[in-house]
Amino acid sequence: MGFRKFINDPVHGFITINDPLIFEIISHPWVQRLRRINQMAMSYLVYPGAVHSRFHHALGAYHLMGNALHELKQKGISISEEEEQAAKIAILLHDVGHGPFSHALESILVKDLEHEAISLMIMHALNEQFNGKLTMAIEIFKGSYSKKFLHQLISGQLDVDRMDYLTRDSFFSGVIEGSIGCDRILKMLTVHEGSLMVEEKGIYSIENFLVARRLMYWQVYQHKTVLSAEMTLVKILERAIWLFNNGDREISASNGLGNLLFNRKSQFDNHFLEMFCGLDDSDVMSEIKRWKSHKDSVIALLSDAILNRNLLKLRMQNEPISAEEINYKKTELALALDLKPEDANFLVFTGIAENSLYNLNDEKINILYKDGAVRDISKVDAPLIHQNLSQPVKKFYISFYKTQKKPS
Amino acid sequence: MGFRKFINDPVHGFITINDPLIFEIISHPWVQRLRRINQMAMSYLVYPGAVHSRFHHALGAYHLMGNALHELKQKGISISEEEEQAAKIAILLHDVGHGPFSHALESILVKDLEHEAISLMIMHALNEQFNGKLTMAIEIFKGSYSKKFLHQLISGQLDVDRMDYLTRDSFFSGVIEGSIGCDRILKMLTVHEGSLMVEEKGIYSIENFLVARRLMYWQVYQHKTVLSAEMTLVKILERAIWLFNNGDREISASNGLGNLLFNRKSQFDNHFLEMFCGLDDSDVMSEIKRWKSHKDSVIALLSDAILNRNLLKLRMQNEPISAEEINYKKTELALALDLKPEDANFLVFTGIAENSLYNLNDEKINILYKDGAVRDISKVDAPLIHQNLSQPVKKFYISFYKTQKKPS
Amino acid sequence: MGFRKFINDPVHGFITINDPLIFEIISHPWVQRLRRINQMAMSYLVYPGAVHSRFHHALGAYHLMGNALHELKQKGISISEEEEQAAKIAILLHDVGHGPFSHALESILVKDLEHEAISLMIMHALNEQFNGKLTMAIEIFKGSYSKKFLHQLISGQLDVDRMDYLTRDSFFSGVIEGSIGCDRILKMLTVHEGSLMVEEKGIYSIENFLVARRLMYWQVYQHKTVLSAEMTLVKILERAIWLFNNGDREISASNGLGNLLFNRKSQFDNHFLEMFCGLDDSDVMSEIKRWKSHKDSVIALLSDAILNRNLLKLRMQNEPISAEEINYKKTELALALDLKPEDANFLVFTGIAENSLYNLNDEKINILYKDGAVRDISKVDAPLIHQNLSQPVKKFYISFYKTQKKPS
Amino acid sequence: MGFRKFINDPVHGFITINDPLIFEIISHPWVQRLRRINQMAMSYLVYPGAVHSRFHHALGAYHLMGNALHELKQKGISISEEEEQAAKIAILLHDVGHGPFSHALESILVKDLEHEAISLMIMHALNEQFNGKLTMAIEIFKGSYSKKFLHQLISGQLDVDRMDYLTRDSFFSGVIEGSIGCDRILKMLTVHEGSLMVEEKGIYSIENFLVARRLMYWQVYQHKTVLSAEMTLVKILERAIWLFNNGDREISASNGLGNLLFNRKSQFDNHFLEMFCGLDDSDVMSEIKRWKSHKDSVIALLSDAILNRNLLKLRMQNEPISAEEINYKKTELALALDLKPEDANFLVFTGIAENSLYNLNDEKINILYKDGAVRDISKVDAPLIHQNLSQPVKKFYISFYKTQKKPS
Repeated sequence: MGFRKFINDPVHGFITINDPLIFEIISHPWVQRLRRINQMAMSYLVYPGAVHSRFHHALGAYHLMGNALHELKQKGISISEEEEQAAKIAILLHDVGHGPFSHALESILVKDLEHEAISLMIMHALNEQFNGKLTMAIEIFKGSYSKKFLHQLISGQLDVDRMDYLTRDSFFSGVIEGSIGCDRILKMLTVHEGSLMVEEKGIYSIENFLVARRLMYWQVYQHKTVLSAEMTLVKILERAIWLFNNGDREISASNGLGNLLFNRKSQFDNHFLEMFCGLDDSDVMSEIKRWKSHKDSVIALLSDAILNRNLLKLRMQNEPISAEEINYKKTELALALDLKPEDANFLVFTGIAENSLYNLNDEKINILYKDGAVRDISKVDAPLIHQNLSQPVKKFYISFYKTQKKPS
Repeated sequence: MGFRKFINDPVHGFITINDPLIFEIISHPWVQRLRRINQMAMSYLVYPGAVHSRFHHALGAYHLMGNALHELKQKGISISEEEEQAAKIAILLHDVGHGPFSHALESILVKDLEHEAISLMIMHALNEQFNGKLTMAIEIFKGSYSKKFLHQLISGQLDVDRMDYLTRDSFFSGVIEGSIGCDRILKMLTVHEGSLMVEEKGIYSIENFLVARRLMYWQVYQHKTVLSAEMTLVKILERAIWLFNNGDREISASNGLGNLLFNRKSQFDNHFLEMFCGLDDSDVMSEIKRWKSHKDSVIALLSDAILNRNLLKLRMQNEPISAEEINYKKTELALALDLKPEDANFLVFTGIAENSLYNLNDEKINILYKDGAVRDISKVDAPLIHQNLSQPVKKFYISFYKTQKKPS
Repeated sequence: MGFRKFINDPVHGFITINDPLIFEIISHPWVQRLRRINQMAMSYLVYPGAVHSRFHHALGAYHLMGNALHELKQKGISISEEEEQAAKIAILLHDVGHGPFSHALESILVKDLEHEAISLMIMHALNEQFNGKLTMAIEIFKGSYSKKFLHQLISGQLDVDRMDYLTRDSFFSGVIEGSIGCDRILKMLTVHEGSLMVEEKGIYSIENFLVARRLMYWQVYQHKTVLSAEMTLVKILERAIWLFNNGDREISASNGLGNLLFNRKSQFDNHFLEMFCGLDDSDVMSEIKRWKSHKDSVIALLSDAILNRNLLKLRMQNEPISAEEINYKKTELALALDLKPEDANFLVFTGIAENSLYNLNDEKINILYKDGAVRDISKVDAPLIHQNLSQPVKKFYISFYKTQKKPS
Repeated sequence: MGFRKFINDPVHGFITINDPLIFEIISHPWVQRLRRINQMAMSYLVYPGAVHSRFHHALGAYHLMGNALHELKQKGISISEEEEQAAKIAILLHDVGHGPFSHALESILVKDLEHEAISLMIMHALNEQFNGKLTMAIEIFKGSYSKKFLHQLISGQLDVDRMDYLTRDSFFSGVIEGSIGCDRILKMLTVHEGSLMVEEKGIYSIENFLVARRLMYWQVYQHKTVLSAEMTLVKILERAIWLFNNGDREISASNGLGNLLFNRKSQFDNHFLEMFCGLDDSDVMSEIKRWKSHKDSVIALLSDAILNRNLLKLRMQNEPISAEEINYKKTELALALDLKPEDANFLVFTGIAENSLYNLNDEKINILYKDGAVRDISKVDAPLIHQNLSQPVKKFYISFYKTQKKPS
């Protein structure tokens, strides 16, 4: 009558934790912190239900990993108890390196360090605290462990990470057509020559999975209002840094966020992890609330945009935004708000939204045929995924503050 | 405080009937009969939940029609009360011409008369009974009514018929990845120059709808076991006809089914509709139960296959089945079961399963852009539906009785 | 890499069959027959989605049994592989003795033999066919096996049978408030001194389960229209027997149904089981279709009521129906339809609908407290189930044919 | 082609906003603020999905109000457009007076002022801003409007507020047995002599609704871990006030929270509403994060409990906690942590959890019988709600910090 905890998940039902080590890891403050980081950043401004946490996603992906390994073992794939524990720990911690508002602020909070790299740093630190019990998990996470398929389940074009976040994000946002039937996909997984494969009869499920992901990208993750809000979040922090660099000391905050933003060297400190793991969405949000009343009208205005959903307009198009339009918009705004030209850069900006249906250059999704043949999902008979591959879909956007608002 | 009835639908919630004429039509024996016709024919042998009736589908499509018209009216499209009633009646009756086991037996029960044609015959007969109140519904159904979009909502590549059956079949079979978000699609519908269109922001939903339909085709409707069972059903009736034509009088049944099968002229009778509308799945099933003990071993064996799920094997491939294989299988079986060569034709047979993701030659699904441009769903930017269009996917199958069974 | 089959269930997800013996039992014609028996008899005339089969319910209950045993084993309860297999077989076959339209016709088809008794007869017969491999399953089913809790999981006030049918009937009928959270209840199960118990923290779930069952009884199973239809079904068969006994030989049918109805001794035949297991809903339905045109106007009228949903009226009340009203209605009808008095008995009849929230005289639902105390669910603190126990709720109904119909 | 906005809700589907005034109210910063207030306070520490916002609930209740009014109008109840708008505004704003963490902090943040009172203050202030357009909404909210049933839909034992929060909380927490079938209940509503009533056939749905609410109370809202966390939140703020009152100036915060906590007169300020409406969960959370490192070990320890889920133990029982136990626990803790006796009060505390299945003293839920009789839900035949009424269920709890933690 061993150790058992259940966590209620409206998405997958009950999630079981039956390993004290895993429970201890989940209980660690650095993991608990993920409860305060929204999985979908600013999407809730369009989809009010999309407020689930990165903690919940980590648990969900852990649950799917357990199911995947169970299926593979039933098919005769050899997986030891130690490997199972390690794979579960690795997926549980795969996103632990995310900071406030996850992807939305990834590029600005910590320079030149992607969240996966920080996840790895955290895993190493935890491994010390847990006396080396995470060593195999780290190997699996890095892809250096001999059984390659364990890594593929964590990081690939068909990993349990994606399966959980698509299912979960679809559920909470209410975009039901993003549902992917992950239970069926899990049952179709197999291992061939050490690599993760999908059984032949799973082809349609995989195609559906890729198309659902495409839909979620454009309809939810890169929805123009969501994009506008998330880019505004970035601009707020950029403006804060700019103000700090221009001598504004009131902008600074006492918490770790200020330290990270205004002291770029801090990310090479001994205490970086501790500081970083002290941060969550509330740190950013409380600063934004403060900055809404800051004397700099640009940061005040951007902060208000987020807090009161007075969002910047955003237009997407297939061609790059013309320099003329950008200049015109900036000039117009500078005049209307009596701003200096360089200030307008924070209120008028452009960018590219980009997504691939399936990335030919990434690790492939391979189909294992009954006759032993292996083919890429884009090479099956009558493939749906065919030549949409050649290049990712790119959309160019311009986002700009509108001086006059009206109910639209 | 008018007339109102509610019907509980696990798929769409409550379905409201607030028009006495529509209630009378639903109450008509020819419509009530659809309660006894399985929407998905033999799919329940693979998906045990797929036992919903064609009656339920008719109600569901009627419900979606109501929602679609409501949305269009909110967008300022002019639709009179009479047109609304007519469109609802038309969709309610669109499939009323289906006979036992719907599509599965469509080709064999009534020769050269598709179910749409029979639906139309029934509508005309009902129109007489209801003193001409179905006239506009018939026009809409036939496509001769001036507002083309009403017909397109009933019969097109994006009609409420498909929206309901995909949603419903996905729900009852438990193949959740077939879900299509029909509420969102309905909200994206509009009318432009008299034709049904989809607003620009509905593109991804439409792509998802088409891909979900493709998945449902190959994973459910044309699942090899389903196909095997449905073709076996056809072979049973073909064998019954063959026996009758070869002098077997015990094969005949007193009910309408026998009349239809063994007296091909009956379909030109005055009483054809009455006879046809007296039939449902139970007529076929009870004959099969009788034939399971018939002295002809072929029909007995085929009937047993359906009743006790001792189904014929079915193999699908991308190339036509070779004449050699067909002959070999027939000879082998004739020897094993001591059959005449011509008898083996009923136990070894081939066919083609075919489906288009999107039919370029059919009426198109048009996207209406904000700038007023109209483009086919296959012509949008970065289309998913691209060149999978050139021709439908075809799969060739051979189905054959296996003399030795074992748990597979 | 053992034997594994998956069956898609919209209610519980995938159902796994990983035991060849169990697969063989499921494949047996006597079990396959349950595919053609509607779980909820005539409920589909009110809830069109309620068309799922008794086969589907058997699979679902089997699935929950597997989950229940898994939970108990995790809690340290000793259950051998043989016992697990036996308990699964027992639940799979618990309802195999149901005939056409299940409960609705139970009292009329086979006299003085409840479906459980027939289930047991079938299990014994199957046990012979399967060389004694069902012996332990039979013991568990009968309650003679030493581990009493295995029997309680099959037959009690909190068994997996009820858990599945409430969940499933709620799902298919769309009466979502009948949902009972069976996953949570399963996790709360435990065994104490050999008996099935519920952990203390499961009290509210159990109360909710009992109240949901009460709701399903009165809102669905005993819905007045459902009751009317099911009683009409009984009256049809009673009338057929009456006609037969009065010399009408055309009423007789060649199939097993006729044999059973008109030759009451047949149920003591050697061939009873074979005959009985040859029957399903389609046998009754095809006879009703024939009888709709029978020369006896009473059976014709009742048959039409079912087929075309021209149902008899039914009124429920808390007091017994007065003799005066019954006589008045019969006389009125005899006059209107020119019937003999004794014929009117088939068109005007009364009955009692009855249900207990919780049966104090049946085996109790026991709660195991953390301190080791055991208390009946009606004896917990602040119990919801309190004194509604003293006696079951009884409602009296009269059902009668209405000569004049109008849209109601 | 009027004004229309859709909001995607995983619970109710699409929520439509088709009134510019309502859209403006929703867009107001004081309403947008509700996006940053968790509907279920600390429940997410047990149910990770329970992170939906009070904003989402307000929209959901607004949606149900629209549906309820639609049903009533279909039944011939006279409701003008202005009344409909007013009722929708009233429900939209019914909870706008909630502060950070809603109920959990209601008693401590603002003294002697319940959230309803603050909601009313805010409505009055908004009414000024919107030039009196909220006057009727305020009357309905207060219950002074002539059509009493409109108020009952907002505030009663069967209002759309409860219907939405039970449905929504059940959905997000994953406690599916809390589902209440609110669509059916809405269809059963009617108005009789100016009062809201439920049609006779809705009795079982209402019973189920009350029992589901009871389950949600004890299993979710008053779950011992949730209660522990929410009481700890209160203790943190109490300790902060205590520290402030004892001269600790570092405890103070610059934001409105500090102002409110440490300057009790502020709630009578002219600027109270502005200050109050500037607050949300992030203000409390960011202070707790700061206080985790505060020099006072008591507040540091309590803050850590919340942030890192090192929660205080909580035990519930039916009898009051004995003074002996309380004293023993306090002494034990004071010794272990080297605290002064008065400090221990913040780490060991008791309370009462209380809930009524149905409150006989509150406004009743009345059933309207077909014969015109009106009976309270506790007075129907064979009532489930019977004598559980006499008094609410009370549970006594003690909560205390455990010095030694281990995986439990």
